[in-house]
Amino acid sequence: MNRLDASARGVYLITVTPFTDSGALDLSSTDRMVDFCLDSGVTGLTVLGIMGEATKLTAAESTQFVARVLARVAGRVPVVVGASAPGFAPMKELTDSVMALGAAGVMVAPPPSVRTDDQIVAYFEMVQETVGPGVPWVLQDHPLATGVQMSAAVILRILQSASGCVMLKHEDCPGLAKLAAIRAASERGDVRRVSILTGNGGGLFLPEELARGADGAMTGFAYPEMMVGVCRAHAAGDLERARDLFDAYLPLARYEQQPGIGLAVRKHLLAERGVIASSAIRKPGPKLSLAEIADIALLTQRQARRLAQLDANAR
Amino acid sequence: MNRLDASARGVYLITVTPFTDSGALDLSSTDRMVDFCLDSGVTGLTVLGIMGEATKLTAAESTQFVARVLARVAGRVPVVVGASAPGFAPMKELTDSVMALGAAGVMVAPPPSVRTDDQIVAYFEMVQETVGPGVPWVLQDHPLATGVQMSAAVILRILQSASGCVMLKHEDCPGLAKLAAIRAASERGDVRRVSILTGNGGGLFLPEELARGADGAMTGFAYPEMMVGVCRAHAAGDLERARDLFDAYLPLARYEQQPGIGLAVRKHLLAERGVIASSAIRKPGPKLSLAEIADIALLTQRQARRLAQLDANAR
Amino acid sequence: MNRLDASARGVYLITVTPFTDSGALDLSSTDRMVDFCLDSGVTGLTVLGIMGEATKLTAAESTQFVARVLARVAGRVPVVVGASAPGFAPMKELTDSVMALGAAGVMVAPPPSVRTDDQIVAYFEMVQETVGPGVPWVLQDHPLATGVQMSAAVILRILQSASGCVMLKHEDCPGLAKLAAIRAASERGDVRRVSILTGNGGGLFLPEELARGADGAMTGFAYPEMMVGVCRAHAAGDLERARDLFDAYLPLARYEQQPGIGLAVRKHLLAERGVIASSAIRKPGPKLSLAEIADIALLTQRQARRLAQLDANAR
Amino acid sequence: MNRLDASARGVYLITVTPFTDSGALDLSSTDRMVDFCLDSGVTGLTVLGIMGEATKLTAAESTQFVARVLARVAGRVPVVVGASAPGFAPMKELTDSVMALGAAGVMVAPPPSVRTDDQIVAYFEMVQETVGPGVPWVLQDHPLATGVQMSAAVILRILQSASGCVMLKHEDCPGLAKLAAIRAASERGDVRRVSILTGNGGGLFLPEELARGADGAMTGFAYPEMMVGVCRAHAAGDLERARDLFDAYLPLARYEQQPGIGLAVRKHLLAERGVIASSAIRKPGPKLSLAEIADIALLTQRQARRLAQLDANAR
Repeated sequence: MNRLDASARGVYLITVTPFTDSGALDLSSTDRMVDFCLDSGVTGLTVLGIMGEATKLTAAESTQFVARVLARVAGRVPVVVGASAPGFAPMKELTDSVMALGAAGVMVAPPPSVRTDDQIVAYFEMVQETVGPGVPWVLQDHPLATGVQMSAAVILRILQSASGCVMLKHEDCPGLAKLAAIRAASERGDVRRVSILTGNGGGLFLPEELARGADGAMTGFAYPEMMVGVCRAHAAGDLERARDLFDAYLPLARYEQQPGIGLAVRKHLLAERGVIASSAIRKPGPKLSLAEIADIALLTQRQARRLAQLDANAR
Repeated sequence: MNRLDASARGVYLITVTPFTDSGALDLSSTDRMVDFCLDSGVTGLTVLGIMGEATKLTAAESTQFVARVLARVAGRVPVVVGASAPGFAPMKELTDSVMALGAAGVMVAPPPSVRTDDQIVAYFEMVQETVGPGVPWVLQDHPLATGVQMSAAVILRILQSASGCVMLKHEDCPGLAKLAAIRAASERGDVRRVSILTGNGGGLFLPEELARGADGAMTGFAYPEMMVGVCRAHAAGDLERARDLFDAYLPLARYEQQPGIGLAVRKHLLAERGVIASSAIRKPGPKLSLAEIADIALLTQRQARRLAQLDANAR
Repeated sequence: MNRLDASARGVYLITVTPFTDSGALDLSSTDRMVDFCLDSGVTGLTVLGIMGEATKLTAAESTQFVARVLARVAGRVPVVVGASAPGFAPMKELTDSVMALGAAGVMVAPPPSVRTDDQIVAYFEMVQETVGPGVPWVLQDHPLATGVQMSAAVILRILQSASGCVMLKHEDCPGLAKLAAIRAASERGDVRRVSILTGNGGGLFLPEELARGADGAMTGFAYPEMMVGVCRAHAAGDLERARDLFDAYLPLARYEQQPGIGLAVRKHLLAERGVIASSAIRKPGPKLSLAEIADIALLTQRQARRLAQLDANAR
Repeated sequence: MNRLDASARGVYLITVTPFTDSGALDLSSTDRMVDFCLDSGVTGLTVLGIMGEATKLTAAESTQFVARVLARVAGRVPVVVGASAPGFAPMKELTDSVMALGAAGVMVAPPPSVRTDDQIVAYFEMVQETVGPGVPWVLQDHPLATGVQMSAAVILRILQSASGCVMLKHEDCPGLAKLAAIRAASERGDVRRVSILTGNGGGLFLPEELARGADGAMTGFAYPEMMVGVCRAHAAGDLERARDLFDAYLPLARYEQQPGIGLAVRKHLLAERGVIASSAIRKPGPKLSLAEIADIALLTQRQARRLAQLDANAR
């Protein structure tokens, strides 16, 4: 059993979903992607997130993809599955099926329709009731995508009322003060401690978030070794090294985090790195222009050079 | 074969999805509901719309419900199935399965993410490609629900590029000028004529829409005989009768069209009328208070009295 | 002194701002409009609301218009002035100037940027601080226009923290349960009682709102005598008369409440009734088509006929 | 005369509006800020933008501030004034007054209410009519703030119909493809060439934008010398130098671009640099925590070190 719990730390990478050029699920690329992630040192995986094109899959494809990932991971790290849905029946159906396959837990973001503090808390009480007592779940706080603003106080209320919630995926921006407030509440003993992994801007604030007490990152980037390295250096107390690494990757990370075309950039890089066979995105989705591909090539070269300088300095 | 085409007229009722008190699909109420609709004189049915709680059903439940409706209708009227989805793979899967079961066509609204004229037109080109050449489909223009504003010019472009679109479900508000412009374009021969059924505010502008050239209504109301009667009186040229009928139902129709609790009002009325066994709505959904139930009782009594007066005057 | 207080009841009409055909402020129509409102029996006026085209006026024009209204009213009824603004300095400037001219109070809605319960409460604490201790003010709860959802609990918190708030302008939809909850809280003594005037859908739920304990309406309609009559009949305990009157005006009220062109309908009717010289709206704003003008003429005739029937029955 | 025209290039800095700790306009800081900007090499200034807290000023304060800036600039560079307004009368009033004081032009963004292509084009035709034939103006395309999505085709239509528009402030994200398309259209001679200054993410894509043909940047950052240096290096053909400079400032720029607290970061840095006396923001506005101030100190130190390395390498 590899159930998610509140002690989770490190990097839970949000994976892409690989497709062939013709748009079919690409399961051999899926295997390679799993290997690539584990080789890079991630401590968990999260599949079927927004950047996993979850809503573009049929229910059967979702299950097939999750099953393949779980088979390849073979229990080495926990796998979280995105289960946000406009209704509780499909949420329950997906949750039950992926937990039966061996998922470590599910992740749920609120729908745009919940707005007031009470509506948000009530929604997650229904989520708790839906997934049931034995299923650990992650509260995804991502206002840019959902439009739902949860205050720190609301998140604490959810933690108090929903016993299965063991992790917060923190993606509010600006969110540093909120992260600090939630962490301080568990330090004071006002609320049980949950794992907090962050994804603000795709990891663009990771050093500051770790300094606020985050346990790591749950986000995507074609160079997961950046997040792994930053988290490890931070854990080792080498804050300068953490910052140097972060800064070396920042120009490309910034480019990959552009809304709208970010996933195309990520898949292009993963294909360039030999991880996935095709950079195809299911429609509706963007295609990179030649100019964008040239931008990426330039940024990648500069990044390699900067990393080499850091290595040289470190010796 | 009962395929939808551009000659459709009259009332295509948006049906509810009946549940038992415990939240399971209620198939015997589904049968009664179909009978009730056909007895009231509707010329078509539309299932799995927003008011059909489509997003709260699992894929299996959706298919099961559509199959039951189609079996009961037994070809007497066309049945349109809502197929809006955040991705084209689930849209295609649902479309293929319901068309195989005997649906007359599908209905698609744009996702909130498409915004500019070109994005909207491109989206519906992908819809056309997804459903395929043999499937008639309805363009749903419902900005209040989708946030997508389509100008008359954009709708005409869609009609030109997407050959399978045979009907416009017109729900923009204010929308009378737009409706008139689209109708005028086909009168002038600028674009092929499609059926236009309206749903603005749940039929709250039906007399004015018929006067602009609408072919009828596609909307829901616990008294479908109102829309049927208004459309028939209009078609017979008895505009005063159409208005009198409409006005008699308007106080209750207005109450049923409240956002948020409208569906609860509708299901309560359908249960009161003996059509469905339970007024249950799947979570998250509202429950009526005693005060609201009293409002409905009062409005229903006044409506009955007013209809009796109209009948008496007509004699 | 004619300061607004929590005992306010009846109809506070949201007035239009009359312009000449060339778009200048029309001050003689303003005088006629004031007379018309007072003759119709309203117990207060509200100027510079959304339907008063407040944002289209320069600061000097706003002051000039308010001064003219106040001069014509001459203390006969309280005049509330809309003072919502994106910043507190302009809010204070307008508030100070209109209170000095003799306004009874100001009305403030939250900006779209406040979202969580705490943000909303904090915003109105700043409003209280801005307008100062001597200025009565109205809390405008109008989610459709502002996007801000305030729960009943939040409104009660605002009443507790902001001593100058003496009235709630209730325009949430569906809002009957919320209205009932706020009223019940003051009945129980949990919070001081404030006046609650309603505007949901431009008065389209007035009978139900009065039944929930509303003190009247603050909204606009080209036939203010409808709201006055409904409120008076309700106060007199003649609920059937209240409903009959309401239903007689409902078809036209519904037409006037169309978003986008509603103000054009209202100004057209006021011009037809001889109240204002021109139906001009400042750009950007809609113009009525001939078909819309014909709709209005038909609805007005039917309304007159129905009112005559009611009168005949009453004798 | 220093009127803005289509040949504008370089850096038009979006300035802050300095306040004293008590919230009053700080005019001596305003003078220092103007000197600081000009010393850093900017080729223009833009005042009363979103980051200039324009909506928090009274009309009189706006005029007073613009007059002070213009007096201090004394014609050395063009000064553009933000004139977006919910109505055309206030837009005209502000435009007339600042042009009379010596502004080089005004800048206008669309209101959230315009949505379709035709609505957007019509809105800017009214803007052209409002500002009048002699006033150069800047089209601000900032969907994140306005919610209005303008396609490249719509921007080209505006340029064709509005003769006074001489500059595009490009802030769409992702926006590189759009920028390239607009530039290509004028290269082909399809439309007259206007100046394009960019502000996407506060300059976070400046190197890529210059490579697409942008003429420079119009945005804010507490280190305007970054944008100036990047633009100069790019113009000199030293693309590596442009990238190196950009990357050196990127960690702090990223931090300053956080939505919600970005302006507080900027004002804190400007106060630290001795440009403005107080970092005060008018309410409602954020305050930095001690942790945030520590973040900024660390980022500033690292930035200074990195710049020193670049300088050493350059020698």
